[in-house]
Order: sequence, then C-alpha cells, then structure tokens
Amino acid sequence: MEKRVIKFTDTTLRDSHQSLLATRMKIEDMLPILEKIDAIGYHSIECWGGATFDTTMRFLNEDPWERLWTIKKHCKTPTQMLLRGQNCVGYKHYADDVLEAFIKYACEGGMDIFRIFDALNDVRNMEKAMEYTKKYGGHVQGVLCYTISEFHTTKYYVDMAKKLAERGADSICVKDMAGILTPGSAYEVVKEVKAAVGLPIQLHTHYTSGMGGMMYLKAIEAGCDVIDTAISSLALSTSQPACETMVATLESLGYETNLDLLKLKEIADYFKDVRKKYSQFDLTDGTPDTNVLVYQVPGGMISNFLSQLAQQNALHKLPDVLAEVPRVREDFGYPPLVTPSSQIVGSQAALNVLLGERYKMATNEVKQYMRGFYGQPPAPVNEEVRRKIVGNDEVIHVRPADLIPPGMEEAKKGVASVMQKEQDVVTYAIFPNVALPFLEERLAKQTQVDFKIAKEGADDEGKVVTYPA
Amino acid sequence: MEKRVIKFTDTTLRDSHQSLLATRMKIEDMLPILEKIDAIGYHSIECWGGATFDTTMRFLNEDPWERLWTIKKHCKTPTQMLLRGQNCVGYKHYADDVLEAFIKYACEGGMDIFRIFDALNDVRNMEKAMEYTKKYGGHVQGVLCYTISEFHTTKYYVDMAKKLAERGADSICVKDMAGILTPGSAYEVVKEVKAAVGLPIQLHTHYTSGMGGMMYLKAIEAGCDVIDTAISSLALSTSQPACETMVATLESLGYETNLDLLKLKEIADYFKDVRKKYSQFDLTDGTPDTNVLVYQVPGGMISNFLSQLAQQNALHKLPDVLAEVPRVREDFGYPPLVTPSSQIVGSQAALNVLLGERYKMATNEVKQYMRGFYGQPPAPVNEEVRRKIVGNDEVIHVRPADLIPPGMEEAKKGVASVMQKEQDVVTYAIFPNVALPFLEERLAKQTQVDFKIAKEGADDEGKVVTYPA
Ligand SMILES: [Co+2]
Ligand SMILES: [Co+2]
Repeated sequence: MEKRVIKFTDTTLRDSHQSLLATRMKIEDMLPILEKIDAIGYHSIECWGGATFDTTMRFLNEDPWERLWTIKKHCKTPTQMLLRGQNCVGYKHYADDVLEAFIKYACEGGMDIFRIFDALNDVRNMEKAMEYTKKYGGHVQGVLCYTISEFHTTKYYVDMAKKLAERGADSICVKDMAGILTPGSAYEVVKEVKAAVGLPIQLHTHYTSGMGGMMYLKAIEAGCDVIDTAISSLALSTSQPACETMVATLESLGYETNLDLLKLKEIADYFKDVRKKYSQFDLTDGTPDTNVLVYQVPGGMISNFLSQLAQQNALHKLPDVLAEVPRVREDFGYPPLVTPSSQIVGSQAALNVLLGERYKMATNEVKQYMRGFYGQPPAPVNEEVRRKIVGNDEVIHVRPADLIPPGMEEAKKGVASVMQKEQDVVTYAIFPNVALPFLEERLAKQTQVDFKIAKEGADDEGKVVTYPA
Repeated sequence: MEKRVIKFTDTTLRDSHQSLLATRMKIEDMLPILEKIDAIGYHSIECWGGATFDTTMRFLNEDPWERLWTIKKHCKTPTQMLLRGQNCVGYKHYADDVLEAFIKYACEGGMDIFRIFDALNDVRNMEKAMEYTKKYGGHVQGVLCYTISEFHTTKYYVDMAKKLAERGADSICVKDMAGILTPGSAYEVVKEVKAAVGLPIQLHTHYTSGMGGMMYLKAIEAGCDVIDTAISSLALSTSQPACETMVATLESLGYETNLDLLKLKEIADYFKDVRKKYSQFDLTDGTPDTNVLVYQVPGGMISNFLSQLAQQNALHKLPDVLAEVPRVREDFGYPPLVTPSSQIVGSQAALNVLLGERYKMATNEVKQYMRGFYGQPPAPVNEEVRRKIVGNDEVIHVRPADLIPPGMEEAKKGVASVMQKEQDVVTYAIFPNVALPFLEERLAKQTQVDFKIAKEGADDEGKVVTYPA
C-alpha cells in the first residue's frame, strides 16, 4: 500500500526564534545554513512576517525586505509568512491600500504562502488580505485561531473554515497559539473541518504544555496534511515540536516524510551553536508550563498577572483573577486569548478583582474593543457590560478598516526624505516610528550624515548632504 | 461506556532526579511535599533503588534504609524501586544470600513493587531476585530491556515476557532506557506481549529523543496499563514525560486518569524551586538529543566518544566509531546498550577504530563479558572474536552468580565495628568501600570519635570510645 506522506513546514527562521529568542536571530546567522535547510525537502520554510518585520528594524538594524530577498535567493523551497490579516505585520488595523501594497511587494519579493489570521476570528478582518494575496499570486492559507469556550465547538471551526474556503483559501491552518489544543480536540476538529471543506489542513502549535507532539499525531490520524516543526535545537518549550522527533515517530507508524535525519542533524548542530549567541534572550527551562493546562490561558498571561498583582501587594488574589478570566471572556464574547485580546481580557480581569467592583474602570483598549474597533468577537458581548464600559460612545458594526482612510499617499510624504526603494513607503506606513529612525540611520551611514544633527541644522563637521536616488 | 483507566507511576523521587540532577536530591527536599504526593492517587511512587542507594551514602551522607523508612512513614501509596536483578542496587553480580538479605529488608521496610531487570535480558540473572521478592511478599515486575537489533524482534520480547510470567512476574515493564522506542514499535510490542501473557503492562522511558509522550500514547492504545511520568518541573529532557501533560492528553481522548491537575500544580511549583538548589548538576537544555534517533545509541555514549577521541586528537573519526558500534554489538550478541554493556561496547568500538585493527586490544570488562561473567547475551557472540579476546581463558556458561560464594558472613565481620542495625551488613556487602567510611562517620558523630585517628591508636583528645548497642 502507498504510504501516506506527511509534510513539514520549518519554523526555525521565524516562530521558533520569535518564541525562544525574542525574535532576535540575525540574517548573518541564517545565511551559512540556508542552502542546507533548502535541501531538506520541507513543504515550506516559514521565515518572515509575525514579529520579524518589526524587530529586524527595531533591534537588528536589518531591512525586512532585504531579509526576504536574501532568503529567497538561497531557497527554492516555498517560503511562508505569518500575516495578521488587516493588522498586516503590525498591531492595529491598517488601511486597505497599505495592506495591498505590502502584499504586492511581498509577492514580488518571492513570498509564496501567506498564513492569514485574525485574533478574533473575524473573517471580515481577513478577507482583504486573502483577496490581495490571490490577486498577486500567493497561496492563501486561512487560519482558525484555536481557543476553548462553550461557544467554540467543533461546529464553530467548521463554519469558519467554510467561510474561508468560500473566500478562496487554498489551505486551512488550525493555529494553536497557546498550546492548549488537546490531542482529543485536535482529532475532532481536523476530522470535521477536513470533511467539510476538503482543503489541505496544516497544524500549528507551541510546545508550551508539552502536548504538541501527541496533538500532531492525533491530528494526522484525523487527516492533517502538514505540520509546523522547528529543528530540534530550537524546538520544544514555547517553540514548536521538534522536526526530527516527528520524523522518527511518523516513519515508525508507517507514514512517509521523505526527510533525512542525518541531514537534519547537521542543521541541528549548527543552530545549537547559534542559539548560544542569543542566551540573554533565552529564558525557557525546557519543562512544560502547566498553567496552560490548568487555566487554559497562554503562559505569558500568568506572568503578567503575577507582576501586576505584586505591584499592588495583592499576590494572594491570583486565584480570584484566574477565576475572573473566564467570566470576562464570556462578557467579551469569548475572544481567543492571543495578542491583543489576551492583554485586553487579562487587564480587565485584574482590574475587576483589584477594584472590588466589576468594570468600575476599563483601559482604553477595552473601550475600543467594546466599541467594535477590533472587529466582531466570536460570540455576542454582554450588552450590560458594554454599556457600562463605553457609556454613550458610538459602537461600530462595520469592518473596522472600512473607517480607515487610505494611507499610502501620506506615507509617501512622510518617508520621502529617506526613501530609497518603493517598499520603504509600506514599511513607513506600518511602523512610522520604528521605520523613520531606521531609514535615517541607513542613509546616514551611506552619506556619513547624522540626521539628528542635520535636522537641527547643525552639520558641524561641514559634510555635504547628498540624497542618493 | 466505562472509561478505561490509565495509571501513573511517579518517578520524581528516583529516576527523574537520577537523570536530571545526578541522583542528588536529598530527603530534606522530599519531606515537605511527601504527603501531597501521596494524596495524588498515583499507582505507585518510585522512590528507591537504581543509583539512589549508592549516592545517598556517597554524596548525601544519608542512610539509604532510613530514606526508605522515612518515605514509607508518609506515604500510603505503594512504593516502587528499581532492582538490577543479581546486581541488586550495585554494578556487579552479588551472592544470592546478599541479594536475599537485601530484598528481605526492603520488603520489611515497606517496599511494595520491585522492578527487576538484567542489562543483557538474561532471565537467569533475574530469577533469584524474582524468587526472593515473592518470598518476602513484594510485587514482582519483570522487565524487558528494550533495544534495537535484527535479533530483537517483537517475538523476542514476547518470548522473554513468557519466561518472566512463568517465573511468577506480577506485571511486565517495557523499559526504554535510551528513549529509542518508537511509537510504532511500542504499539506492536505492547500489543503482542499483552496478548501473550495477559499481565498488566507498564511502560518506562526517557524523554531524550522527544518521542516519550507519543510512544506512551501508542502503547496505551495497544493495551498498556501504567506509565512512568515525572512532575512537570522535573520532566522531559533525560527524565520522564510530564505527568500533567499525559493527564490532559489522556483525558481529552476519553481515558480516565483520576489525577487532578490543580493538585499536581502545587507539587510542580514546589519542585521548580527545589530544582534550583541543584543547578550545578543540572546540565540539560530541554531540547531533544537527536543522536538517539540517528544512531540509536544512548545520548551519553556519544559524549563519551567525543571526549575519548578528542584526547587522541581523532575527532574526525567519530563517524567511523559510530559505524563500528553496530558491528561490535553484532559480534557481542546484541546486548541492549545500558550500563554496563554500553560502556563495554563503546570502549571496544573506539579501540577498534583508533588502533586500526579490530579487537587488537580489549579492556578487562570486555574480556569478562566474553568469558560469560555478565551473563548470556541475547544472541550468540562471534566465536572468532571471542577467541581473539579471551585466548585460552575459560568461558563460563552457568549463571554467573552460581560461582559467587555466600557473602553475608564475611560482611558481618567487615562491618562489625560500626554496625548499628542488621541492614548495615547488606549495605556493606554491596558497597564496602562506600559503606565503611559512611558508617564510620555516622558513628564518629554519635561518639565524637574520629575513626581515622582511632585506627592509628592516636586518640589525642583522650575521649572515651563507646560503641552503642
Ligand atoms: Co506560533
Ligand atoms: Co530510567
């Protein structure tokens, strides 16, 4: 009998170091091994998007577009990126023209597979990204953000998958951001979604709770086609399950992976050394974070509570805060707990407990959330709570980005003085405050001009300022 | 439908810290949490035997018997120990009367379940331990040491399990010392062994390769009844799979564990702190050791090769040595790679490569192995190789311990001057060189006498030497 082939996406160059090393891995540490990674035979190489766009400029003095081009130059394997729907690679909704320009340049730069999600599973926040990706020739992977609530039944995921399929998704990703997807639920969700939409199914998880490998195994038994793994030396903990472990396991069970453990070992040895360079960011201890299992909230949320409560001398109230989380989630329409909804829910739960009265105060983000500016929550919100939080302020029901005016024209003006390529406009449109100093410094290096001084009109050393074309 | 109950043995107090913290955990770090561990509802608590007997005296200045009694005082849950067959809790064969005395005192001290193995799977080296355990009322768990070779077919394990069942085993343990048991093979072995002997099956593994959880899952689907896990904060890496992760996984798949994640969390938090005290011994980085998957040898063996080859300036010969290992194993009759056979095979493979001629030299241990003093290897050894190694020296075919004269009488004499309880005789019979200074120091503390000085007849401070009864 023909063996069933299970395909692998390698996350080592994106989510793995985003999760373990604060997204700090430099292109210089990827370059020496890129061709070996390319030769493995992965389904795809996730290497861009998520937090990398931001951090390359903010911390590494790297141009995110050049990183894409460099990787593409050395890889024939399809590249893959994480795109936050209308949030693009940022943390808020952007105008449609900015999103379109971003996706156009990404496709032109060689990005092949776009994994598109929305933190609230609001498909309206995903549909423009899906449309543009198709328009410029990318593969659209539509994402189901996995979360647990009475509202998030298997039928919920099936219905959402159908919506994504109707909007042209080429494949479906079940994205388990927090590592809370149990093997049992994975089996059920994958089975039903696959039966309903017939598209290739890919699974994404973090090893935080230690269930990742077993969850993949059950998802594969239910029909999952592709799994996300990291090379062993950058796997487990808050990163993905290890590639090599899954290869050996699946081969032992009669599946075909077409991946070679000896070749993978060379890459694992390489990254074992690379990882040491980033030890200052490397804070995991390699054991499961069972808060995820007990409270079904992301590991980071508990640490936030602890520091928040410690400041108020109220550490003994942690159990109350943890008990308040599911109630706030219910009032908020059961958002998945992922950036930014995890912060929104978490801060409100803490406030409710610390102030001794529920919804006495709310952060600005909570108000915006309740006014509809993040999109539509999975379930109806508690109207009484909404009124208490937003008062008489208007609540919107349209797609939030419908209210955002086009942004490219203004971005062109803002970046004009330092622009060197058309992609710089998008970079600036998304992260003006990060992009401008980055682009200025790049230009300064080329021209030997310190922009901070130039701006003040005090070019003390008398250098000639020339702007390259 | 009634849910199938899967039971758990907690290894935190024995194999987990033996694997992660060089067996250094002190009773004072167990005591504060013992009653909470006892209240979890584990099938058993593995807390004694293996390397603990030795290290309590050697490094911790603790009496191993007192540790057993103390733990027993606080635990109603059945206790469990690892017993190395005729090697007892040591590293060589002991006389039958020493083994019998040890097991008698262990049973009297409250040990319930004896997991009995032999490194070569030579049942003759296990049968006295099994017999004495039954005689003194213990539960006999007979062990199949799992290893990979053309000789170690599923039928091999089935045949061995039958032999153990015939000799009165109450349950069977499939012991995967190196973390090389794949989920696929586990399924097959457990299925067949269970069908053949009908005894409860328990699985033991180390998370070294990262397959442990998935392997347990497949073993359970094949009928495994009990799994060995450690509390999450002392799990994974070279330790066992995490208890909490397996609980959440199994419950999600419709099994019953009767274990409470919230109660387990208290214990996990406790050991998270305890672990910090032992950081000097804590060398794992939490990522899978894929040498285990590529070469199917224990992780420690590769490190040994590396240091051995580095000394000879021959690091480039590592691939040759690794290729030589399976050939040596074949010549040696396919021993499982576990202490001491892993050292025996490994040192010979390195010698064969470094000297450029196979079996030109052999260590004393290799000679003894080939002469039959470790027992009978799983498969016939290569007779030509044997002759080259042992020359005209006699080869034995009997059970090695048949040639060992009784040891208790002589031990009584050796320990007489410092003996305080009858168990001290066994302690001395097993580890004379470790036990004597330990027992002397204990007595010295009680009597304020420095034995080193007393022996030299120079009790300078004029104290009266009194021996307590
Ligand atoms: Co992720
Ligand atoms: Co073990």
